[in-house]
Amino acid sequence: MTHKLLILSELADQYRTLVEEAQLPDLVIESAPTPEIDIVLGEPSRIKAALASLPALSWSQSIWAGVEPLLDPASRRNYILTNARGVFGRLMSEYILGYLLAHERKIFQRLEDQKNKRWDDSDTGTLRGKTIGLLGVGSIGADVARAAKFFGMNVRGYTWSSETSADVDKYFHGSDLLEFAHGLDYLVNILPNTKDTRKIINAELLNVLPPHALVINVGRGSAVDESALLEALNQNKIAGAVLDVFEKEPLPKDHPFWTTPNLLITFHTSAPSLPEDIAKIFIENYKLFIEGKPLKYQVDFEKGY
Amino acid sequence: MTHKLLILSELADQYRTLVEEAQLPDLVIESAPTPEIDIVLGEPSRIKAALASLPALSWSQSIWAGVEPLLDPASRRNYILTNARGVFGRLMSEYILGYLLAHERKIFQRLEDQKNKRWDDSDTGTLRGKTIGLLGVGSIGADVARAAKFFGMNVRGYTWSSETSADVDKYFHGSDLLEFAHGLDYLVNILPNTKDTRKIINAELLNVLPPHALVINVGRGSAVDESALLEALNQNKIAGAVLDVFEKEPLPKDHPFWTTPNLLITFHTSAPSLPEDIAKIFIENYKLFIEGKPLKYQVDFEKGY
Repeated sequence: MTHKLLILSELADQYRTLVEEAQLPDLVIESAPTPEIDIVLGEPSRIKAALASLPALSWSQSIWAGVEPLLDPASRRNYILTNARGVFGRLMSEYILGYLLAHERKIFQRLEDQKNKRWDDSDTGTLRGKTIGLLGVGSIGADVARAAKFFGMNVRGYTWSSETSADVDKYFHGSDLLEFAHGLDYLVNILPNTKDTRKIINAELLNVLPPHALVINVGRGSAVDESALLEALNQNKIAGAVLDVFEKEPLPKDHPFWTTPNLLITFHTSAPSLPEDIAKIFIENYKLFIEGKPLKYQVDFEKGY
Repeated sequence: MTHKLLILSELADQYRTLVEEAQLPDLVIESAPTPEIDIVLGEPSRIKAALASLPALSWSQSIWAGVEPLLDPASRRNYILTNARGVFGRLMSEYILGYLLAHERKIFQRLEDQKNKRWDDSDTGTLRGKTIGLLGVGSIGADVARAAKFFGMNVRGYTWSSETSADVDKYFHGSDLLEFAHGLDYLVNILPNTKDTRKIINAELLNVLPPHALVINVGRGSAVDESALLEALNQNKIAGAVLDVFEKEPLPKDHPFWTTPNLLITFHTSAPSLPEDIAKIFIENYKLFIEGKPLKYQVDFEKGY
């Protein structure tokens, strides 16, 4: 049997090249929806928009980790949905370490100095000996913990119960949240969006951080109580924050985060889906698919992950 | 015998506290030069200025790696000079990784986006799979190589003959310089200032780098042919440069480096002498000193290191 693949992505050309190079058996790549297409590789929102014109769809490979658009109970669910996993840890670590180093090594201040032709040879800080607290230690958190250890940090981890990463020096669970946060130099949220993680970074938590603390959110926007964070930043209760995710994305133009002092924002770009990474997942899953074996990274439509 | 120590540093109070905490035997810390002072801990230029008023000086511990002011043949040399070593590798790695991550993860562009309220969710790059070339692989270079490997880079090393770091994938020597540089994503100079390293980063070397290459100099300013680098940047022959050291420091106000596009400068701050690091070296050396044993990190006045 010949399988027919539709690629629905801004980077469709790159994905087509990578899939073609793999010379997968019995696979034809189509350029537009047809009633025979049984496989889709792409961005969840584009897949959702195409569902009605793909009656034969039996497997969708999302190129992102998040598949919220496809979880809508009103949408079709009679196909296998797989997402991207296992490739984001190192990218998240790069992002987090990049911003921690920018903070400690005064990278932005040095640029201002340069603009002002000011030779400022005052000492900068270092990551070594600092304490980082990870809200969530799954596969991504474990990679961040490893990077933090590499740079000589003390690592605390907050999880519901698991203690799987050996790079975490001390674990905290459940009601230990404030104890976990007390005295942290850096607080990093990597938790997924669930009812238990909503506004976990709230006024109470921010209050136990020291004034030099930096908060980074690469998990989900819902984890942050936005008004509490704004207050903490505006009153210098913490030194700064770096946010990659927000309650509403794109962030509305009139949102105060754009102009809050000591707040850096990025645009849900901390862990990009790189085509070479995601194509590998698709290729591996395609081989399982044609052999009738279970696919990797299947999403449970009810649980949402 | 009681030893008398003078601390000559901008951070003298910090050093005094750290040395006092060590409760070293037979040591008195003086606040100003006296004829009895036999030990000095401080910055080389301040030590040089005080030499005439320290007739009993028998050991100077520099808090910096570079001791050029004290090498002046016209200056006294009848004392043991030790410098700071072994503590700068990880700090240099932090600096280099910080700027590499800022480059790949578009940290400066994201800040501009934020100022312009522009939600730019285009993908960023990654360190993984990139090739870094280290000019000089001593103890500092070895640490940078280890950090580069940690982030999944390919590592080339250029040395006169040594091949001591296992984190270097391929070594180049002597006349292999252009082959070493060919196709590098990142070129990092860590070489000390010797006659063989003067202007090693010249037009010929810059010409073999690809247009997306980033050049970082944390070694000595003399390693860079400044006009060749200016030309390479102004003509977009390379993507950018980060310089921490210069032929003349502080960099003169009218130097074009302050305003050259795609050039970031810092102020000889890539590896700060952190008092907690340097005090440890002093304390260890003091214990050797009072036992009459050879001190660590002695500088040969003739060789200059």
